[in-house]
Amino acid sequence: MLDIGASFRFSKNVVRTLTILAPGLLGGSVAQAARAREAAERIVIWAQRPEVRLALAEQPWCDAIADSPETAVHDAQLIVIAAPVTRINELIDRIAPHLATHAVVTDVGSVKAEICRHGANALAAAGSAPGIEFIGSHPMAGSALTGWAHGDPELFAGCPCFVTPYNSPAESQLTTVVRFWRDLGSEVVTLPPDEHDEIVAHISHLPQIIATNLGTLLGSKPPNWSQLAGNGLRDTTRIAASDSTMWLDILEQNSDEILRALDGFEDDLHHFHSALANRDWTALRTRLERGKVWRDSLRP
Amino acid sequence: MLDIGASFRFSKNVVRTLTILAPGLLGGSVAQAARAREAAERIVIWAQRPEVRLALAEQPWCDAIADSPETAVHDAQLIVIAAPVTRINELIDRIAPHLATHAVVTDVGSVKAEICRHGANALAAAGSAPGIEFIGSHPMAGSALTGWAHGDPELFAGCPCFVTPYNSPAESQLTTVVRFWRDLGSEVVTLPPDEHDEIVAHISHLPQIIATNLGTLLGSKPPNWSQLAGNGLRDTTRIAASDSTMWLDILEQNSDEILRALDGFEDDLHHFHSALANRDWTALRTRLERGKVWRDSLRP
Repeated sequence: MLDIGASFRFSKNVVRTLTILAPGLLGGSVAQAARAREAAERIVIWAQRPEVRLALAEQPWCDAIADSPETAVHDAQLIVIAAPVTRINELIDRIAPHLATHAVVTDVGSVKAEICRHGANALAAAGSAPGIEFIGSHPMAGSALTGWAHGDPELFAGCPCFVTPYNSPAESQLTTVVRFWRDLGSEVVTLPPDEHDEIVAHISHLPQIIATNLGTLLGSKPPNWSQLAGNGLRDTTRIAASDSTMWLDILEQNSDEILRALDGFEDDLHHFHSALANRDWTALRTRLERGKVWRDSLRP
Repeated sequence: MLDIGASFRFSKNVVRTLTILAPGLLGGSVAQAARAREAAERIVIWAQRPEVRLALAEQPWCDAIADSPETAVHDAQLIVIAAPVTRINELIDRIAPHLATHAVVTDVGSVKAEICRHGANALAAAGSAPGIEFIGSHPMAGSALTGWAHGDPELFAGCPCFVTPYNSPAESQLTTVVRFWRDLGSEVVTLPPDEHDEIVAHISHLPQIIATNLGTLLGSKPPNWSQLAGNGLRDTTRIAASDSTMWLDILEQNSDEILRALDGFEDDLHHFHSALANRDWTALRTRLERGKVWRDSLRP
């Protein structure tokens, strides 16, 4: 009867067992969103610390708690590794030999090339069950808050989510990951890991560095200056309040692409600086207008 | 009877006749706020174009329309020049010989040093009636919208407003300007024009240039990149959509202070760039944390 109920409630494509490893804000939100939107029948979670596992066991969006990553994945159809980017590879290595046939492993890391290469190689090397794939993900969602307790079932609604297949995985497995993120409400974009890292270096990592540096400069000025600021400065620097440790990990994982993006920005800024120093109002008007045209073109 | 009604409705400190010259978004908002908050008994407006004057004459917050700046100011106690920064000095020169005794002239320009020097000298040179002062103002309020028709009586509520006395004007006149902006709901900060220009170069003009340059860089990349952006990029670049002509005027008027602020930002960014290139994670963590500490310190 339960099975009938289940097969009645869930489409045939729903994830049967979803395992989430090391949930923070994103992992907790994945679990809550999957439960709220019925994207998974059963949700299994592993967390590093026992006190966190006990707290998670009490959540309505957690069906089972595992004592180790190895046991957490043993019958999972989809595994979401929600650990910080620097800890993802080690978790892939731990679970690789324990995955069920046709299991798909993904993550939520902000940098993809190195993780996707490592994931593909680690699963192959483990000689684990057939049809298993690692397919990276990067939901462009977040919050100034951290930790699974701040998770939000609507965190992914309408937000872009990158899915980054490496070495052409089986279409059925790729579809499982894409469908899962779509079921959570995000707008999925599939592209190669290297291309992902180049793009986010420009649209996410560079803005973070700029906001941080505006903050360090203004932090070196009299404190009352900043209190006089209008909404412009407040908006321009909002992301400077993001978690430093997470960003240090991202800088380390994507340093090559970020350095290229920084070169491009510093070139533009240098040209603007020279035009202002030379009182070249025509060049400055062109740059102000190009910036406005670009910003006006952003979807609301 | 009307006078009795007026003296009953208005405190003895209210501006009797407020004249607004060349209203745009800010000038229109000053008139609406002054009427809504009863900060002036009578509001006289001059606009350059006759069709605008006809439209203004129909507004409940406009008591009289003048055909020229000279006639607009003849019995005004407080004159607010709302023209773009590049047109303020010429209007000061035109009205200087026509001001009433003890009239106070102010403006809403984003740059203050040159305008305040010119204002003080022009009024002195005009040998106009006694007690007349020019005292600059800069309400840190705005909108992506422009034009008096987008004016908002609450535009100044809670926003910082700089008042920048030059050559120690009479306290009573300074108080008139400060009280007026407070009556409109803004938080007034009085400081010298040069100091104002240094501060806004850092807290307003530099963020604008950074947002513009992020826009020009991303505008040179495939358009779909920007459509993948999350809220971080959207917030960081919001002000890049501001009016190009207004910003070109500000760049021209405050170029020296802006170039100094740009030097400081480019130095910080260069150090960040070097630390990343050298994989100096300690230095990068320090910078990320300093930026976060500064941003967390901003008033909400």
